[in-house]
Amino acid sequence: MFQRTQNLHALLYEISKVSNVGSRAASSATTSTLTKNFNGAEPSQTPFKGNLSTVAQPVDSFEAPNVFEPKIHVQTKIPGPRSIQLKDDLQTMQQMGTVSFFSDMYKSQGNYLADVDGNVFLDCFMQIASIPLGYNHPAILESLSKPHNVQLMANRPAMGWFPTEDWAVKMRELFMSVAPKGLDQVYPMMCGTCSNENGIKLMFQRYMHHQRGGRTDFNEEELTSTMKHEAPGSPDLSILAFKGAFHGRTVGLLSCSHSRPIQGVDIPTKKWPKAEFPRYRYPLQSFEQENKVEDDRCLATVEEQIYNQTQLGSPVAGIIVEPIQAEGGDYHGSNYFFQQLGKITRKHNISLLFDEVQTGGGATGTMWCHDQFDMEHGPDIVTFSKKMLSGGIYHNQDHRPAQPGRIINTWVGDPHKIVMLEAVLQTIQRDNLLTRVRRSGDVMVKGLLELEEMYPDLVHSSRGRGTFCAIDASTAEIRDAIINQMKLVGVLVGGCGTQTIRLRPSLIFEEHHAHLMLEKFHDVLSSLRK
Amino acid sequence: MFQRTQNLHALLYEISKVSNVGSRAASSATTSTLTKNFNGAEPSQTPFKGNLSTVAQPVDSFEAPNVFEPKIHVQTKIPGPRSIQLKDDLQTMQQMGTVSFFSDMYKSQGNYLADVDGNVFLDCFMQIASIPLGYNHPAILESLSKPHNVQLMANRPAMGWFPTEDWAVKMRELFMSVAPKGLDQVYPMMCGTCSNENGIKLMFQRYMHHQRGGRTDFNEEELTSTMKHEAPGSPDLSILAFKGAFHGRTVGLLSCSHSRPIQGVDIPTKKWPKAEFPRYRYPLQSFEQENKVEDDRCLATVEEQIYNQTQLGSPVAGIIVEPIQAEGGDYHGSNYFFQQLGKITRKHNISLLFDEVQTGGGATGTMWCHDQFDMEHGPDIVTFSKKMLSGGIYHNQDHRPAQPGRIINTWVGDPHKIVMLEAVLQTIQRDNLLTRVRRSGDVMVKGLLELEEMYPDLVHSSRGRGTFCAIDASTAEIRDAIINQMKLVGVLVGGCGTQTIRLRPSLIFEEHHAHLMLEKFHDVLSSLRK
Repeated sequence: MFQRTQNLHALLYEISKVSNVGSRAASSATTSTLTKNFNGAEPSQTPFKGNLSTVAQPVDSFEAPNVFEPKIHVQTKIPGPRSIQLKDDLQTMQQMGTVSFFSDMYKSQGNYLADVDGNVFLDCFMQIASIPLGYNHPAILESLSKPHNVQLMANRPAMGWFPTEDWAVKMRELFMSVAPKGLDQVYPMMCGTCSNENGIKLMFQRYMHHQRGGRTDFNEEELTSTMKHEAPGSPDLSILAFKGAFHGRTVGLLSCSHSRPIQGVDIPTKKWPKAEFPRYRYPLQSFEQENKVEDDRCLATVEEQIYNQTQLGSPVAGIIVEPIQAEGGDYHGSNYFFQQLGKITRKHNISLLFDEVQTGGGATGTMWCHDQFDMEHGPDIVTFSKKMLSGGIYHNQDHRPAQPGRIINTWVGDPHKIVMLEAVLQTIQRDNLLTRVRRSGDVMVKGLLELEEMYPDLVHSSRGRGTFCAIDASTAEIRDAIINQMKLVGVLVGGCGTQTIRLRPSLIFEEHHAHLMLEKFHDVLSSLRK
Repeated sequence: MFQRTQNLHALLYEISKVSNVGSRAASSATTSTLTKNFNGAEPSQTPFKGNLSTVAQPVDSFEAPNVFEPKIHVQTKIPGPRSIQLKDDLQTMQQMGTVSFFSDMYKSQGNYLADVDGNVFLDCFMQIASIPLGYNHPAILESLSKPHNVQLMANRPAMGWFPTEDWAVKMRELFMSVAPKGLDQVYPMMCGTCSNENGIKLMFQRYMHHQRGGRTDFNEEELTSTMKHEAPGSPDLSILAFKGAFHGRTVGLLSCSHSRPIQGVDIPTKKWPKAEFPRYRYPLQSFEQENKVEDDRCLATVEEQIYNQTQLGSPVAGIIVEPIQAEGGDYHGSNYFFQQLGKITRKHNISLLFDEVQTGGGATGTMWCHDQFDMEHGPDIVTFSKKMLSGGIYHNQDHRPAQPGRIINTWVGDPHKIVMLEAVLQTIQRDNLLTRVRRSGDVMVKGLLELEEMYPDLVHSSRGRGTFCAIDASTAEIRDAIINQMKLVGVLVGGCGTQTIRLRPSLIFEEHHAHLMLEKFHDVLSSLRK
């Protein structure tokens, strides 16, 4: 077992020595070793934009070694006695019955999460897909330790009024370097929820701006009616979302979400429309025709809802959609589906927002999942958070507010997250992590396919882009049993939808971690069959 | 002028030496030097709760010296050429026409904000009231530099599923130590907006829980109707807010806000009711009777709206209110007003939420502004952010969700903010900052009163609790001229409402800073009269 890190500076020194050795060891990996892992597309052929566009190149790639590679070790029931004690205490101060166990962030390392009872797990869920470089990554520790950065983090100004020079520079160097194609505007935000809330506001504002014929001032009637929550200032408009979608838990976003009732029950939401999102049969290559029919069926419901809403006097200002419905059950849409969706929004002159809060930041093998969709007209708005550490909104010029103060809040982001994001993007580039993601993801999907062939009574429908993978269990009970058993053998995976297991490892998840996960998965399935 | 801080560790070492000297120099300040600064109340008599309850005691108080006390220095137009250049660049990447100038956080110190053009301002606005201890406070720099804390900040888990031991400990040691009376539950959040959104959700959930007679499971009809945004799962309920209020810019909170139409125009909000918030005549002691009539008039509109909403079939689940309407124009409510408001919510069995996002954290001279209201039945929910650095929600047992997963998100707060908050609360206690706030606030209000006596044609209606002070200008134009002129003589103040100047200094704002601000204010008013 690895020791508690007592001296950070010594640790950083040791790591820098090892990393230097690592950087001289060129890997033999090339993109040609990647197989087509979804829909026939080769995601590796779609490099992302800006300064980091070289990361998809196989030349001179290398894999920095994990300095302290821990080992799976389970020595108590899960949760262990200390976790139970801490949860009992926490529960006296807040309703947090969802807690699984308590983490030990001093002992966690890389892809391995330690808990307070001395257990160590291979973490394939990574705090609901929110940790990009694993635990205690030296690049992040180093970035947070720089005196310059400490001062940035200690003094968070109101960025909409008194921003720092670093802020403007980081907008360009960081955010613009990985901006989705065509989206050259960005608002950092605090979390995915704020990003989506402000994203749908951009769609409403753009819709009304066009309705006003581009007039940039507001008349008295518009301003006074706004204060009364009445039209024309507060118009009756809607956002079209999809059944099974999850976009957040505010009043506005619960009006777009449709994954689980417990999130929205008792809350007076807006009655906004929901279209159907594809539910494919797997493996895709065996059901190409059926799945194309499914795409067209769903696209027809999109058109239908847009028509209905106009009839109801609450027209659709825009569509919000996840590139992969995550919380709802890891449902994928084909490139065709998204290409057609883009065309529909163009046809009706409404906006398209891709919620890449969970899919963005590299886990699908490209910086943005929708980079793989080969869309003629891509999204107008892309929201992000989780692995990007900072929340935020990319948008195109057509969605740029005509007036200042339309999208703003006290902070408009957080220097602390930018300091970490800088380390993340540099590491993605330096360590060629998107190539690693595609390679590890390939191992994962192939392995899951093998498992479903071996245990067709227990699991089916393996799917994934990069390491953003999932497999369905035959029933919700079997899914829950698998997740619990996996925990007991030292592997953390997540659940979603009704009977799906989702895998969300960090970007430093290597092929041997994928093999280890699959081996444990096999053991669990084997034990469940007995 | 002070030098750019090149070596953080050297700085911290120097500071620790000076602070030790400072801590032996007992101040002669006592609470008896405080005058009644609002409504006849002596806020100093209301110590806040928990471990920090001793901070209101005058014994052995001391004022830690500011190590590098900068001086006001204005050498360019504001904004200066570098700020203009940076803003032009930033504007190519985001609509941020609101930017005043660019800050230099490496040169800013204590109560003084430096900009990128070499100007140094006495900052009486402090990033919209969001900086508790001024710039580069040694306690915060030190806390952020501890290796232990660096690891906490580098690894933010999903606190609703895999929290750390530190997290549970900090809930008790930090949040519970300053919890408002009667509120023993807390959910940390990322910002004030998320706090208020989840705060109103708690009110809806509690209302429906009582409607269900305390039944803790949901029936099939409730669950399926939730997914359709229909009753009974998604009931037609409303939140009562006040005219002039500001609670945030999400769809749900724009439905509660009523300060400026630019924030809400084009957004389809909920048509939720607004009652009247008092508009007093000042000085209060000269208009006691008139202001009592105003209180009763406003309270009658609260009762009226509650009645109306029931008739409309959209009953009020709860009331959201700021202890001082800040963004809307620094409008105060009397203790009587809030006491009666509390009684009204009890009578109708609905919830009372105090939005202390701007007033909380000590600026009013007590940890929470409503500590001064002497309420028999205080708020059920108190939200916070800004000076608390972490957002969050305190609530009572009656509002504790009956089920897990009702109030949750990926992060439920941020260790980085907790690390800073720990330094803030320790410093408030060690340096007896609430006493300092009351003393400096007393100087401010007295001085503003003197100014309005000297310049009755320009300013009137001085008011404040602690250093949370304001004064009205005769017109919006005069207000804007004052704010601009103040900037040119090196003092930052904020605007709010239609013609109000708001003062929001940090908690380390001393009497001599107050005198300096007043002196510059006098100069500006004198120059405007010419």
